[in-house]
Amino acid sequence: MYESITVPTLVVDSAKVRINASRMLDRAARNNAVLRPHLKTHQARQIGRIFRELGVTSGTVSSLTMAEYFADDGWNDLTVAFPVNLRELDAINALAGRICLGLLVDNPDSARALAAGLKNPVDLWIKIDTGSHRCGLSPEEPDKVEALLAEVAGYPLIRTAGLLTHDSRTYAARGREAISALYHEGATAMLDLRSKLGRRGFAGLKVSIGDTPSASLVEDWLGVDEARPGNFAYYDLQQVGTGACQPESVAVAVACPVVGIYPERSEAVVYGGAVHLSKQSQPAMAEYLPDGPPDTSFGTVFRMEGEHWDGFLPGAWVRGVTQEHGMVRMQANDLSRLKVGDLLFICPVHSCLAAHALREDTHFIGL
Amino acid sequence: MYESITVPTLVVDSAKVRINASRMLDRAARNNAVLRPHLKTHQARQIGRIFRELGVTSGTVSSLTMAEYFADDGWNDLTVAFPVNLRELDAINALAGRICLGLLVDNPDSARALAAGLKNPVDLWIKIDTGSHRCGLSPEEPDKVEALLAEVAGYPLIRTAGLLTHDSRTYAARGREAISALYHEGATAMLDLRSKLGRRGFAGLKVSIGDTPSASLVEDWLGVDEARPGNFAYYDLQQVGTGACQPESVAVAVACPVVGIYPERSEAVVYGGAVHLSKQSQPAMAEYLPDGPPDTSFGTVFRMEGEHWDGFLPGAWVRGVTQEHGMVRMQANDLSRLKVGDLLFICPVHSCLAAHALREDTHFIGL
Repeated sequence: MYESITVPTLVVDSAKVRINASRMLDRAARNNAVLRPHLKTHQARQIGRIFRELGVTSGTVSSLTMAEYFADDGWNDLTVAFPVNLRELDAINALAGRICLGLLVDNPDSARALAAGLKNPVDLWIKIDTGSHRCGLSPEEPDKVEALLAEVAGYPLIRTAGLLTHDSRTYAARGREAISALYHEGATAMLDLRSKLGRRGFAGLKVSIGDTPSASLVEDWLGVDEARPGNFAYYDLQQVGTGACQPESVAVAVACPVVGIYPERSEAVVYGGAVHLSKQSQPAMAEYLPDGPPDTSFGTVFRMEGEHWDGFLPGAWVRGVTQEHGMVRMQANDLSRLKVGDLLFICPVHSCLAAHALREDTHFIGL
Repeated sequence: MYESITVPTLVVDSAKVRINASRMLDRAARNNAVLRPHLKTHQARQIGRIFRELGVTSGTVSSLTMAEYFADDGWNDLTVAFPVNLRELDAINALAGRICLGLLVDNPDSARALAAGLKNPVDLWIKIDTGSHRCGLSPEEPDKVEALLAEVAGYPLIRTAGLLTHDSRTYAARGREAISALYHEGATAMLDLRSKLGRRGFAGLKVSIGDTPSASLVEDWLGVDEARPGNFAYYDLQQVGTGACQPESVAVAVACPVVGIYPERSEAVVYGGAVHLSKQSQPAMAEYLPDGPPDTSFGTVFRMEGEHWDGFLPGAWVRGVTQEHGMVRMQANDLSRLKVGDLLFICPVHSCLAAHALREDTHFIGL
């Protein structure tokens, strides 16, 4: 099955993607919300097509380049969930001429410059900051939001879509209770803001929220109109850490050739480093590392059953990465069965970054 | 000059590359050593050609793919400074049929499997571990090195080249004195090992060493035959931190469009995140951040003079990155002059990772 893999390769288990996607679509349907999945996690037409087969009609991307890629594969309703980049007005105009394109703003300067350069209509979302402190206007300052809505209302090529947030605080939380509390706080702030703005004459604003941990763990979405999780398609070690999924649900592995075995320090070295797994790390999780010391992890090792992975190998983790090397701590009995030239299947900390890095080296199973 | 830049782009100042390369070549010549620069830092034919114009005839790469890329541009003597990957025997044979190809081994299993699959001759280096604890045999165990040399001596398509190390300890050191001490320790261990092996009948082994901090700061290379630094072509924030260079010598900047300005938290947000700058970070350096609190830095901001950068903007650093966003802390007076749509020029922490990420989005000046 994997004989053809010679270099670090992202392996995607399409059957798991279908299960993860179906579960999220069911939850969105129960909440009467549109699922506009973030496609940046996979950046793969093959996965986009699975979503469309399941009934998804709208998507989220994080760049114009990614929007063009998916538009070329038949997506005709895409939101670029990134503050509008005024240096890409030509690309915006070209794309807005062929699909329904959503953009984000959080300040009047960007709105004015966008409006001055637009040649085709776009949907515009006001970016709200419910706690990430990255971009967006505070829900505590409805006057500023109102002023921006008033500004954009005057431009004929701008259709005001609504209020949009991505609350990344949940990625650092652990467990359903903590994540539900954060979701409740953020979603309530968004819905309250909409009510206030409705009373000030801005009717019909949609509310769009975004993160995978709360979309995975919170049953009642409190009446938001749209959810934009992305990572749930693949999941990863970070999401296992938040409790958003079990290891068995992770749909991607980075297959890495073993190039060295060092029993004296309980390690294997694989071809698979920072340019494949990324430099994103998190504390190694004690529950999957019964014999491991406290350490930083750049990934865990999957236990393989034939061509499929099935949870993590206990006591095994990627303790470091350099540009092309991954240093994998393993228990002695597992290490003794390993040979140079074998493959190890690594669960990345952040699948979005691994999928981006390996977008030219991806192998789909079960398609 | 930079009007055409619309997305995060690596800008390379070729004049600085020439200066950095000439200085390193001069030092290698004074040490009567071959400079076999690591080409993974830039992965760019344009930079490879600058090296060749300056007289370089041999190079180092970190993957077969990279070797093929440079071989296609006329390089005919390349060492893959990564443990031989047995799953790439076909690519090895193809490449060894058209250039002088160097490979690394540190164990007899890899050597035997390589020898069994070879169809064309290769140069083989024995990887020695002088302190990185990543790959390699210890110089304290000459018996193991001798056994491996004896193993490979029996294969007709393998030409034994010598002993090779990459001592990454210097990247975590600061200042000429600390780095010189580490260099002295590592190089002496290599030269002593060669002497021992010479007395055991293995004559003519070359010694190859690798890291940029010691190659930049240590005047006397103690008689090694070959040096393989790579980062010196571009340098970066990490190397400024080690003292290997001044900010003025850094030859690359990541040009990032400004998409948001947040005076209330002294920050700009740029299009330029983990998939451009990488997730590599280091402590923000107090000497360049006079007003900044202790923090982690994913890059600093260059002060621009026309189209060139000229040192760092005081009190400015990238305090966080997500997939596409960079959050840039800046002083109020600098922030007040910034507009959405402007470019900020960021010095990456690790230029090799930024150059890899942006290899399709690179802009050369002064070529």
